[in-house]
Amino acid sequence: MKRFIVLTVAGLLCFAGYGQSFNNEKEKVIMVIHGGAGTILKSQMTPEREKAYQDALTAALQKGYDILKKGGTSLDATEAAVRVLEDNPLFNAGKGAVFTNEGKNELDAAIMDGQTLKAGAVAGLTTVRNPISLARAVMEKSPHVMMIGGGAEQFAREQKLEIVDPSYFRTEDRWKGLQRAKQQDSLRQTKSTSAVLQPENRDDKYGTVGAVALDQKGNLAAATSTGGMTNKKYGRVGDVPIIGAGTYANNNTVAISCTGWGEFFIRLVVAKSISDLMEYKGMSVQEASDKLVMKDIPALKGDGGLIALDKNGKFSMPFCTEGMYRGYITESGRIVIAIYKQ
Amino acid sequence: MKRFIVLTVAGLLCFAGYGQSFNNEKEKVIMVIHGGAGTILKSQMTPEREKAYQDALTAALQKGYDILKKGGTSLDATEAAVRVLEDNPLFNAGKGAVFTNEGKNELDAAIMDGQTLKAGAVAGLTTVRNPISLARAVMEKSPHVMMIGGGAEQFAREQKLEIVDPSYFRTEDRWKGLQRAKQQDSLRQTKSTSAVLQPENRDDKYGTVGAVALDQKGNLAAATSTGGMTNKKYGRVGDVPIIGAGTYANNNTVAISCTGWGEFFIRLVVAKSISDLMEYKGMSVQEASDKLVMKDIPALKGDGGLIALDKNGKFSMPFCTEGMYRGYITESGRIVIAIYKQ
Repeated sequence: MKRFIVLTVAGLLCFAGYGQSFNNEKEKVIMVIHGGAGTILKSQMTPEREKAYQDALTAALQKGYDILKKGGTSLDATEAAVRVLEDNPLFNAGKGAVFTNEGKNELDAAIMDGQTLKAGAVAGLTTVRNPISLARAVMEKSPHVMMIGGGAEQFAREQKLEIVDPSYFRTEDRWKGLQRAKQQDSLRQTKSTSAVLQPENRDDKYGTVGAVALDQKGNLAAATSTGGMTNKKYGRVGDVPIIGAGTYANNNTVAISCTGWGEFFIRLVVAKSISDLMEYKGMSVQEASDKLVMKDIPALKGDGGLIALDKNGKFSMPFCTEGMYRGYITESGRIVIAIYKQ
Repeated sequence: MKRFIVLTVAGLLCFAGYGQSFNNEKEKVIMVIHGGAGTILKSQMTPEREKAYQDALTAALQKGYDILKKGGTSLDATEAAVRVLEDNPLFNAGKGAVFTNEGKNELDAAIMDGQTLKAGAVAGLTTVRNPISLARAVMEKSPHVMMIGGGAEQFAREQKLEIVDPSYFRTEDRWKGLQRAKQQDSLRQTKSTSAVLQPENRDDKYGTVGAVALDQKGNLAAATSTGGMTNKKYGRVGDVPIIGAGTYANNNTVAISCTGWGEFFIRLVVAKSISDLMEYKGMSVQEASDKLVMKDIPALKGDGGLIALDKNGKFSMPFCTEGMYRGYITESGRIVIAIYKQ
């Protein structure tokens, strides 16, 4: 029998806020997930909505855990967990993705295998139900790492992945989010392109889902999926499908999935930087990820968070935003979920 | 008066081949460029064609040098040098880009500022004459780092960059290259998608141009531009527009531009790895870039090369292919050009 203790953030004193992140988990952790970082305020959350997030994160962790416990691979576990979150309209990935300025849902995803350093990434999708599974197909069924736009969708069709009408991704909440973002833009009455594009209400703008896992053979994997930024223009691509920025896994060090203001994660090559700080400077997963999330990203005036799981089952989930939907599951099946900062 | 000594590879004993790369340049180097690595065989080259490459590389170095000597920025110098190579049909970037499977020219580029860690990247362009200048506009005129496809081209039009008919990029040589690649594919009569996509004649398949520079204020910059891989399908994107993989610059360490089999450069996050080996392990630019190009990339069965210029004007240009079009210019204006391995 698996035992579950689902804790709300109120029961935890161990998560990262604006400052050093730390956790006192004694047991080995085999999977960590996130559902996005942003301006998540308890004051704006209903108990029902909070429970819906907790249930969704729990279901994703459970899905991955069941695979890992049966001896399945970390790749299978992360892909399956991310699919659960892609299919849930609460999160900005798959169904429930945010809208572009043109009123479309454009999806990006990436997956990486820490054992082989193989990776797959896709960007600018509008008809593939589960972008993470297309990223995996790119990794395993093509010699390429990254495919974009219509070409990537042609590959998805040839690989017999589930294709949906673009309207599948639409939710009323996200449509309203686009209208709010457009209103704010016009209210600001700015003239420069750069000012118009500057995110203001970050809660409307961001969101990503991701999973990292460690399987029984000691193989790490990372998977990330996103609908990008509300009201985005010009075919903007964030850090999610950039290997080394938003997604990275290496059996020698760590598996990482990021969420936040993607441009800063690209410029700092965040995930690979953490891996290199661990490999070349001997930092722990906590020290290395704190350096990037609590120091380097804020120094450039960016924000966001990430989940990181090292080869020994040590993990960290730092963020420098108001909140981050996140959770982990230990080897014995104990689940911990949290949303807000401490 | 500037002095020029243009050397062919016959006069040089200092370049990298399959083995340790090393150079004995005593003077400070302020700009290094490349025109792609691949199966470049002296036996298949005419003296006229060799001279044309040397002249083009010399012109690009001279263009960048003139900017740097007048106190211009490394960003201006690298952009200008790459534009010279984009405009020259000899190289697989801008005019003269290779063709996709669908008979189109799809262009990618990236630029990065080592002082601010700002970066711009574009992928999947078909109408922008100089992709490197669009990458720079993305960096400087938008809050984004990466734009792809039609959205990126819309941004180019709004930024008043030069738009051309897609036929501008066409050259007979590259068109024949596509026909050769298609013939080889059908001759192989393979059934699996992955085998069909596997590059065979790498000389037809690859090519990239790039520049790295160090200006009088000590700022580093890197710029890379490419037409990608001949006969590519599915909107494939290589390492060039992936910050940290094919393009990276950081004033603390090094500026890097890569060329070669892009998938391996993405998986190894090559450029950022070199920077981190220098920053965290104290390796020289030569040691760090040799580790990636001569050891890590071949270990995964990839190949290619790169140019790297550190904050002190030390450089390296390792490659593990038959040849790499490459050259550098010293502080005093001395130009050195090379093509083959030693």
